[in-house]
Order: sequence, then structure tokens, then C-alpha cells
Amino acid sequence: MHPKKRSSPFQSRRERLQSVMESHRLPFLLVSHLVNIRYLTGFSGSAGLLLFGPRTVILWVDPRYTLQAQEQAAGVEVIEEKGGILKAAASWLRKNGVREASFEASNLTFAHYEHIRKEAGDAVRLTPAGDLIEELRAVKDEGEVEAIRGAGRVTADVFTELLPHIRAGVIEQDLAAEIEYQMRKKGAEGVAFETIVASGVRSAFPHARPSSKPLQECELVIFDLGAILTGYAADMTRTVFLGEPSRRIRSLYSAVLNAQRQAIRSVQDSTPTGAVDSAARRSLAKHQLARYFTHSTGHGVGLEIHERPRLGKGETACLKSGSVVTVEPGIYLEGVGGIRIEDTVLVGSEDVEILTPASKQDWIIS
Amino acid sequence: MHPKKRSSPFQSRRERLQSVMESHRLPFLLVSHLVNIRYLTGFSGSAGLLLFGPRTVILWVDPRYTLQAQEQAAGVEVIEEKGGILKAAASWLRKNGVREASFEASNLTFAHYEHIRKEAGDAVRLTPAGDLIEELRAVKDEGEVEAIRGAGRVTADVFTELLPHIRAGVIEQDLAAEIEYQMRKKGAEGVAFETIVASGVRSAFPHARPSSKPLQECELVIFDLGAILTGYAADMTRTVFLGEPSRRIRSLYSAVLNAQRQAIRSVQDSTPTGAVDSAARRSLAKHQLARYFTHSTGHGVGLEIHERPRLGKGETACLKSGSVVTVEPGIYLEGVGGIRIEDTVLVGSEDVEILTPASKQDWIIS
Repeated sequence: MHPKKRSSPFQSRRERLQSVMESHRLPFLLVSHLVNIRYLTGFSGSAGLLLFGPRTVILWVDPRYTLQAQEQAAGVEVIEEKGGILKAAASWLRKNGVREASFEASNLTFAHYEHIRKEAGDAVRLTPAGDLIEELRAVKDEGEVEAIRGAGRVTADVFTELLPHIRAGVIEQDLAAEIEYQMRKKGAEGVAFETIVASGVRSAFPHARPSSKPLQECELVIFDLGAILTGYAADMTRTVFLGEPSRRIRSLYSAVLNAQRQAIRSVQDSTPTGAVDSAARRSLAKHQLARYFTHSTGHGVGLEIHERPRLGKGETACLKSGSVVTVEPGIYLEGVGGIRIEDTVLVGSEDVEILTPASKQDWIIS
Repeated sequence: MHPKKRSSPFQSRRERLQSVMESHRLPFLLVSHLVNIRYLTGFSGSAGLLLFGPRTVILWVDPRYTLQAQEQAAGVEVIEEKGGILKAAASWLRKNGVREASFEASNLTFAHYEHIRKEAGDAVRLTPAGDLIEELRAVKDEGEVEAIRGAGRVTADVFTELLPHIRAGVIEQDLAAEIEYQMRKKGAEGVAFETIVASGVRSAFPHARPSSKPLQECELVIFDLGAILTGYAADMTRTVFLGEPSRRIRSLYSAVLNAQRQAIRSVQDSTPTGAVDSAARRSLAKHQLARYFTHSTGHGVGLEIHERPRLGKGETACLKSGSVVTVEPGIYLEGVGGIRIEDTVLVGSEDVEILTPASKQDWIIS
């Protein structure tokens, strides 16, 4: 007896795309977004163009990537092209009598579009497609979840192990460097975004970059960090206080932590993304803090650090079992500081799994 | 007496762009490439759109970046926009009766182009512009050179200080992590690209990523690294050998080093970029090694790690005093290993300055 051969995740993703395309009556799709090419084929090089259609999966690469593409992209026809991959794909369409092909309008520059259009000639109609593959990517498969879980574990562990080293006098930039170094030591390929370490009044800027400022006693410090593991990102924020916080600071922290809990509690299969955002805002509003929450509640995480779905005001897309999103309410008080608490979470069919399991209780560093 | 007020570098760059636009008879330019916005205004946020025209320099940003834009972009009208910056810019064009505006075809997606076109309406003609700002950026001003010099120094210093730690048994990934950590400790904002550490037969892949492989005796190891400082990148490659190299390896190393020297010697104001590439290739050809040199000789470096000019076969653009480029011949022998030697260099009016001053002689680690 032969065990039934399990199809590769890439094969399954291509099958899902094929059925989406059939339902949209799209015959061919030119995939130019490298992340989408990686998602569909496994190829992780920095240049390539994929043509996807019925019985056609062709990946054009330049000579740097021929070997790599052949190794990574099983079941895909790899064509090495020295004279420009856009041109090669366009002339393939022309020569094979393709009448209509769609392209990724959000991920193809106007100049590249024009290049393909001219090369393909008038007989090929090029039509902009919506973000079909991004929609598929909004629900993760098993292997993807495992990768993000790994990235989340590294991210959480690095922060937990950093805690004893957070004290007055340490420079923001040095903590950021330490975080990124420890991620690499734990096997991360890199960081999903530039690590944020923002202390004191600087923590009131949601996008502060680490500076040469030393941490001081009686300051809030925001850490926003995320590792990349096997191509997948995690995203986590923790806020700590150095010294003995005032009653005001304690109540602000509890309010944000509560808002995050309420928002996570609202996360489940079929919840509209906007409802998660409202849950966080409603919770903060009870403490008259909603106006200090100046960004949206979260975003999808995967091969990219910001992907679908978006968890913002009025968003109507629904969460699905297999979605991986951040939940990150924060408040920013000018002249005082900021508090943001963020986890990457997996939407299950019945429960939610926190993929960045670092304590949110041990926030007072004395 | 008042000292004459020196205009800011951003102001001078905008003046240069203005005269280029006049010579092309372009009235308005929508600048969507964030790097170009940073170059023209100093604004370093992750979202924004700039409209540049006669007596008009408007930067649209979302509320996250209003304060930062106002601080960084002196002399620029900053407009905070909550309802989408593309839409805001397009309706500005319409309302102000602009008849023609060009856009950055290489840096605007088809979807964004369509969005602007619809919002601007038929009265505004949108025309694709060439890479005007990229052309300006190919010649650096004093402040830019200083920034790249700083990035180059950090890059070279980190490698020099790493040398004593390179030995058999050390993992490629750990060396990469150490390099990136030390860059941060020396003030780098980050890395210009993922650091390459590739040993043994893996060094024969020009784009190998650091793996969990330990270095071994009698192996070539390629290090390709670059820091970012105040927004500007440097790029350097060194190859070392662990143990006592054979005569063959010694002669291969000398051949690459010579090719790099010949190429650098050919670098000067007004040299065609293709001639630098030929100089490297001719030198390798003397040793029957030209066929193992499978990429181009170099590229411009600045706010981006790959920018103009390109130093490749048959390129006709000329180097100019103020150009900063890499010179990086390499040979890759399957099953044996690779040797690449790269510096970032500044083209002066009479000489060339090596901006990544790490030794190329001390390549044998015993």
C-alpha cells in the first residue's frame, strides 16, 4: 500500500488561486509581487515574474536565481532569462496567442505595466486584477501558522530575557541592538521591522525610532519588536515602567491592558474586523481615553508585517479561522508618554491563541 | 554684517530639480517614491506624497506624520490628510486648474495611478516622467558623501574587529548576527541589506544567505555587509581563507584583487560606467577567469543600496565627480567556492576615495 501522497502547501495554494480565478473568469494572472510568488511557489529570490493560468505555471528568473528557483519551486516551469523577465513574459503571452491576462495592479509599477503592454502587443488585453492572492494569504495554512508561532516564540523569549537588563542608564539604541542580536542568535533570519525602543516623553510618538537617549527612572518605555522565521513575521509590543508608578500611570496601564483583553475576547471566526476595533475603543472610552488611541487596533501578519485583514474603524471584512492578526491598542499622552500592548494572535474555530506569549503583568521594573 | 545665509541641501536639491523640470518643460511632478521625498525635503516617514512645481512644494501626510513632517521638511507646505493622501493630491490638482502633471512611472503602482487619474478628472493630463530625481541622486552633495563615509567607516571597522573571531567552528548565522549587532553598537540605524556570510562551497552562490553551517578549515568565506548611517548606506565585501591556502587559491585571490584594483584605477570623472566593468573583466580574462564573473561590476550607493549609475557591460552613462559606486568583481567556481572583493568608492575630480577602508591583504586566517 502506498500512503496517499500529500500535496505540497504551494500546490494547495495554487489550487485555491485557480478556483478563485475561475470564479472571476480570469484566464491568466501575471504575478509580480515577490511575496505572492513566494507564497505560491516557495521561490524566495529578489527578482522573478510568475505567470499563472490553467495548466500554466511559469516562473521567469535571471541567471542569478536559476538554480535556486529550480530547487525551491517544485512543479513550476522555471525559465532563465538574460534579456529581461518582463519582456520574456510579455512575448510569451504574444507568441502563445493569449488574448487576455490580468496583472497585480497594486504591485506593478506604471512603467512595468507599459513595458509589458508594449511588448505583448495589441492582441493581448491586460486587465488590472484585485488583490486576489493577498485575500488568500489572509487565512493561513498549517505550515504558515507553525512558522508564525516560531517567530512569535522567539520574539516573546527575547523580550522576557531582556527584562532583567532594562534599567535606568541603558541607551534606547543599545537595547534595540541587543533585541535584534538575540533574535538572530535564536535563529531569526532578521527583524520584521525596525525595533522600537522609546522611553519617557518619546514613548508618546507611536513611530519613534530608538535614539541615543538613556532610560531614566519614573519613565514609561515602549518596546515594539518582531522576528522573522522561515519567512514569516511576528509582532509584539510591551510597555514597562521604571520605578514605582503613580496611581495615574497604574490606572492608564490597566485601562490599556483591559482594552486589549476586551479586543482579544471579541476575536473569533466570523467577527467583523471593525468589531474588534470597536471593542478596544469602547473599553478605553469608559476611562475617557478613547481620544488618545490614535491608530487602528491591528493588522494581519504573515509573509509581510502588514497584511490583510486590517482591524480598523468601520472595517467590514470578517475574521476567519486561520487569520493571524495583531491586537494593539495604545494611548499617547503628549508630554507624559505612551502605553501600547500588542500581541499577534491566531483566530481558531473556537478559541484564540496568543502567538507572542510574554507577560503583560510584569511591567513594573524596580 | 550678517553672514550670508547658506541654503539647506534640500533647498539646493529642489533648485536642481526645478531646472531639470524646466528643461524638460514639465510643470508639476508628483513624487511618490519615499526615498525621493526624503532626498528633496528631509522627511523620513513611511507614507507621504509630494507635489513639486513652480512656487509649489506640498507634502501630504497622514496624522501619524504631521509633526514629524513639519519638523523635518523646512520650507515645504505640509498638509495633514485623514482621507487618503493620493485623493487629496489629485483633488488639489483638479481644484487648482492644473492642466498637466507628471508622475514617477517607476515608482507609482498602476492601481495608485488609476486612483489619482480618476480623482483628478479628465481636465488634468497625467504623463509618466523618467527617473529625474534618481538622476540627480547619482551625484552626491557634501552632506551625502559625509554620511556614506560614516556608514563606510562603521562597515569597515566592524569587519576589521570581527577578524580575530573568524575561525573554524563558528556558525555563519552567528557571525552575521555579530556583524549586525556591532554595527548597531557603532551607531548604525540598521543594515543596508541582509548580511551575507557564506563559507566553503556555499560561497560559490553570489546570493547565499547565512546558514547554520559552521566554518571549516581550508574554506573560503565571503562576507558582504553594509551599515546605514543617517539614512545612507555603504556596501563592502571581503573574502578570507581559513588555514593555509593552496597555490591555486592564492592565485585566484590575487586575480580578483588585481581585477578590483584595475577597475578602481579606471574610475574617474567622465569615465563611462561600462569601461569600469570592462577593466575588471579584461583583468580576469588574463587568467582565463572572466567566465566565472557572472554579475556586473558595481552600482551606485546612497539612500538606497542599489541606485544609479550601474557599472555593467556596455553601460554608457558616465561617472561624475560626486558619484559613489561599488566596485565588486567576483568569481564563483561550483564545488570550490567564491571570491568577491568589494569597496564603496567616491569619484573625485582627480582621485578616488575608498569609503570602506578595511584591509584586503589580511585574508589568510591561520
